[in-house]
Amino acid sequence: MTSPIVNRKDLDFLLYELLDVEQFVQRERFAEHNRETFDAAINTAHRLALEHFHPHNRKGDSNEPTFDGEKVTTIPEVKQALKLLAETGLMAAGQDFELGGMQLPVTIAQTCTAIFKGANISTFAYAGLTTAAANLILAHGSEDQKARYVPHMLSGRFFGTMCLTEPHAGSSLGDLRTRAEPQADGSYRLTGNKIFISGGDQDISENIVHMVIARMPDSPPGVKGISLFIVPKYLVNDDGSLGKRNDVRLAGLIHKMGYRGTTSTMLNFGEQGDCTGYLVGEPGQGLACMFHMMNEARIGVGLGAVMLGYGGYLHSLEYARNRRQGRAPGQKDPNSPQQLLVEHADVRRMLLAQKSYVEGALALCLYGATLVDDQKTHPDPAAREEADRLLAILIPVIKAWPSDYCLAANSLAVQILGGYGYTREYPVEQFLRDNRLNPIHEGTNGIQAMDLLGRKTRQQDGAALKSLLTAMRATADQAAAAGSPELGAQAVALQSAADAIADTTAELLELAGAGGHDRFLANAVHYLDMVGHTVIGWMWLRQGLAAEKALQGQPHDADFYHGKLAAGRYFFGYEMPKVHYHSELLRRREDAPLTTDPNWL
Amino acid sequence: MTSPIVNRKDLDFLLYELLDVEQFVQRERFAEHNRETFDAAINTAHRLALEHFHPHNRKGDSNEPTFDGEKVTTIPEVKQALKLLAETGLMAAGQDFELGGMQLPVTIAQTCTAIFKGANISTFAYAGLTTAAANLILAHGSEDQKARYVPHMLSGRFFGTMCLTEPHAGSSLGDLRTRAEPQADGSYRLTGNKIFISGGDQDISENIVHMVIARMPDSPPGVKGISLFIVPKYLVNDDGSLGKRNDVRLAGLIHKMGYRGTTSTMLNFGEQGDCTGYLVGEPGQGLACMFHMMNEARIGVGLGAVMLGYGGYLHSLEYARNRRQGRAPGQKDPNSPQQLLVEHADVRRMLLAQKSYVEGALALCLYGATLVDDQKTHPDPAAREEADRLLAILIPVIKAWPSDYCLAANSLAVQILGGYGYTREYPVEQFLRDNRLNPIHEGTNGIQAMDLLGRKTRQQDGAALKSLLTAMRATADQAAAAGSPELGAQAVALQSAADAIADTTAELLELAGAGGHDRFLANAVHYLDMVGHTVIGWMWLRQGLAAEKALQGQPHDADFYHGKLAAGRYFFGYEMPKVHYHSELLRRREDAPLTTDPNWL
Repeated sequence: MTSPIVNRKDLDFLLYELLDVEQFVQRERFAEHNRETFDAAINTAHRLALEHFHPHNRKGDSNEPTFDGEKVTTIPEVKQALKLLAETGLMAAGQDFELGGMQLPVTIAQTCTAIFKGANISTFAYAGLTTAAANLILAHGSEDQKARYVPHMLSGRFFGTMCLTEPHAGSSLGDLRTRAEPQADGSYRLTGNKIFISGGDQDISENIVHMVIARMPDSPPGVKGISLFIVPKYLVNDDGSLGKRNDVRLAGLIHKMGYRGTTSTMLNFGEQGDCTGYLVGEPGQGLACMFHMMNEARIGVGLGAVMLGYGGYLHSLEYARNRRQGRAPGQKDPNSPQQLLVEHADVRRMLLAQKSYVEGALALCLYGATLVDDQKTHPDPAAREEADRLLAILIPVIKAWPSDYCLAANSLAVQILGGYGYTREYPVEQFLRDNRLNPIHEGTNGIQAMDLLGRKTRQQDGAALKSLLTAMRATADQAAAAGSPELGAQAVALQSAADAIADTTAELLELAGAGGHDRFLANAVHYLDMVGHTVIGWMWLRQGLAAEKALQGQPHDADFYHGKLAAGRYFFGYEMPKVHYHSELLRRREDAPLTTDPNWL
Repeated sequence: MTSPIVNRKDLDFLLYELLDVEQFVQRERFAEHNRETFDAAINTAHRLALEHFHPHNRKGDSNEPTFDGEKVTTIPEVKQALKLLAETGLMAAGQDFELGGMQLPVTIAQTCTAIFKGANISTFAYAGLTTAAANLILAHGSEDQKARYVPHMLSGRFFGTMCLTEPHAGSSLGDLRTRAEPQADGSYRLTGNKIFISGGDQDISENIVHMVIARMPDSPPGVKGISLFIVPKYLVNDDGSLGKRNDVRLAGLIHKMGYRGTTSTMLNFGEQGDCTGYLVGEPGQGLACMFHMMNEARIGVGLGAVMLGYGGYLHSLEYARNRRQGRAPGQKDPNSPQQLLVEHADVRRMLLAQKSYVEGALALCLYGATLVDDQKTHPDPAAREEADRLLAILIPVIKAWPSDYCLAANSLAVQILGGYGYTREYPVEQFLRDNRLNPIHEGTNGIQAMDLLGRKTRQQDGAALKSLLTAMRATADQAAAAGSPELGAQAVALQSAADAIADTTAELLELAGAGGHDRFLANAVHYLDMVGHTVIGWMWLRQGLAAEKALQGQPHDADFYHGKLAAGRYFFGYEMPKVHYHSELLRRREDAPLTTDPNWL
């Protein structure tokens, strides 16, 4: 059976042939695991996703949650799918055994969530947010908080949310105004408004555990004055039963371009003066707590973007293999049969572009997940530090590049289906609408670019970027020594791209040192694109090496490996030259955005 | 008042300072016109668009037409707006006085339609299709057909449609199957199915005049066997009253990603064996008739794409000028006020990119319209031929480039608004959804690219491309001689881009001559992008020269002209280098799409 969600063979290739995830079982934390338990988790996720998430993806889009002023209503399939998900235990896939989790590597847990996102990103969002909120409490909460909330969250009885954004403070969290007043009993009384809170209200779970950032009366201004609070929709008694309805109210639902199955809400805290919250961690550490899980959250956004792109790729490929339309340029006989779309060069170009974007980005996101595993569980402290450095520099790329290019892939899928692709009878336009959120949330791509160039390249005197360049050059050396002539040529191109990054970064940092801070950062998005394309080229060269190795064994599924080589050929032929476009633009210090007076626009 | 549709000053600049449209009044056909009558038409369109088209743009999107099996229902605002439009006479803006038209230049008529498209592309589509169908009858119909249908169409009593696509034949019209059997009375009996017929049914006009292409029993296969027919929903009596209901039936409405206010229909012709049609023009000339108006139709698509991009640009600019968020990179004081979005370099980059795309593409589309006027009415036959050559080579660019890049502009507008931009409370996401159709319909952009490289560069031994290169080089020479140092540098860049086009084309044509037909066309979309970016660069250099000229007169609105120079600076700094990326890719003869076996995907 061909899955509309993901090529299962591709997952195996990436996890076991490219990233050697099986080695993790040698680590103490994963000693009870083996490839069979990894595969069992992935297969369970895939089956459940196919049977209970994928089928209502379009229905959820065309039947948005409604709010009648009293109650939110979602389609019943959402609750059913999430109930079944909780029952599999996959909501705690990465958690410790002792907390009821499966204690799987982050890489396997992220693979499972990726499959659900590909099947139905809107329905899965409720579960993803709940796992994230539970992890936050586990990492920073008191023993009482862990016991009171987490088991009910991981069992799917309570769901969780993240309440950061306020109407006047989106990207600029330091400017938030929600207040938390300490009470005599050690709790806090919250007042304020939050917006764009996904899952902020629904009719699915018994309770909702809001993780809210707010400011105490005596807090300093800016990000240092932000603390983290648990604000449950219903207070929770010691025995786990629900207590009083808390004063957090749905002010309204927001209607979005896509991602429509997930409620997006405006919430009012303490409108009646009676909203109770509980401090998590230390005062003033709210953002630090939130950002503790940032790496995994941003890998999750990247993976979501990838999987929406992957679904579009698979659907447009299937369509192109079955739909006949037109003839080859040289064929002038109108009586000759029409050819399949996939036989048209331009259609194959659009398929190869999609494949190179989505499979390249999937390789990068899963590689990022292995770095999180290495950072947490590698037995060698030096390797843990190296993983930490690589993650630091790669995270903005992992969040932004897939959300730009897998969105572009979605648009290509629509184009292949033509007029049909533009209709809501086919799923490709929904993928495009759903994916348009990813460049915006969890830090806009512009902010990721500032983070990459403005912070990450400078941390530890540039050690993170050095690690990345060294790792990429090592692959290039390997390909030059052991690969085919084709991969040897790709190795030269990768070295040249790495040179471009090194030289461009040095010039930009010199500019920053000389006080040209605005000019240093003005073209940060081009810097991110330059690094991103190089990193994806690196992933393709690594995949090419693994494919050539596999082909030497004359496998029965040689087509799959030839496909990997073809997509790498496409990426190096059509995409890698853009690295130099960006590098030259950055080195010319193009400054039109800085020299343009806003009144001229 | 700031219009949310278009910068009125920009229209004046393009029409009178850049394109010197006022000169047209010296031609006999336009002798009764002057700048005042041109402006009166534009102002009437702008006022009507603001008052009656713009206000229900979102309502039409969120309240799609419905079909209960008997009757289609649209929101009442659509009918009211179109009634008022017909009353202004603008539906016949370009038609002869003697036909009740305004006999305005195509350039002014297209400017008026552009304004309506910017206000509400879905509502205007009904009128645009009606004008196009009326023009088709005027150009190819019999005297009886002209008298029977056209006056009622231009008065808005009847609407028109274009019925080309069939479920199995989208881009490949030669494969269509709808049949037309000749009858004893000289009429034809039609049977067949059409799909994606915009305005194919509605509750707005008394009657619908379908322009249908079909095949007669003895017709040759392919495009040469296609004839054109009038198929009215209700037969029309000699006195103009409605006769019998014809056997053309709505099989269903199609639900689209955007453009939702326009019905998109599946139509069945002759299900009861009683569908009457009337041949227009000669048998076998159906496509030739349809394509007679192709230049204007494709300029219309380009302009529609431009105006959706323009609306997004204006809205995101307004938002960026009023929304405060975050601080400059060097500002670490959390107590300092937040800065306006427009003060962030990356936001200004996104605004400049939009401005350079939409104003550059608007200049190109209106320039294309002046070429249609020159082709039809220039007193010098040599100038008419030159306009014909330039149009031939530019039409695929005019259709495709705006639909790619003004769509990209829409995505930038969403990004500037962030989370708000992703909601349906703000108009920018609708512009993006509406615009996604434009790369698909009226010949996909892939087909435009094949037309440009495969046909247009070779017609008349390459005369059309030579004319284009000569015209661009003339502007570069002028800028080198008379412009500022900045425009002088842009002139060098434009010459270099023209060189790249000339060299690349020569190499590709050599390849085609050597029998490498597939390889010749494999990267046609990159060829179109190379030419497109160069042409838009040309438009910016021309605008730059006009702006410098205006600034010498120390105008009160100097900001506007500085904005033109800033957008040109952006385009030459950030976009023109891509010409060489495309050129190098084409000259390397990248062939991954050709060498990839479909089974590898």
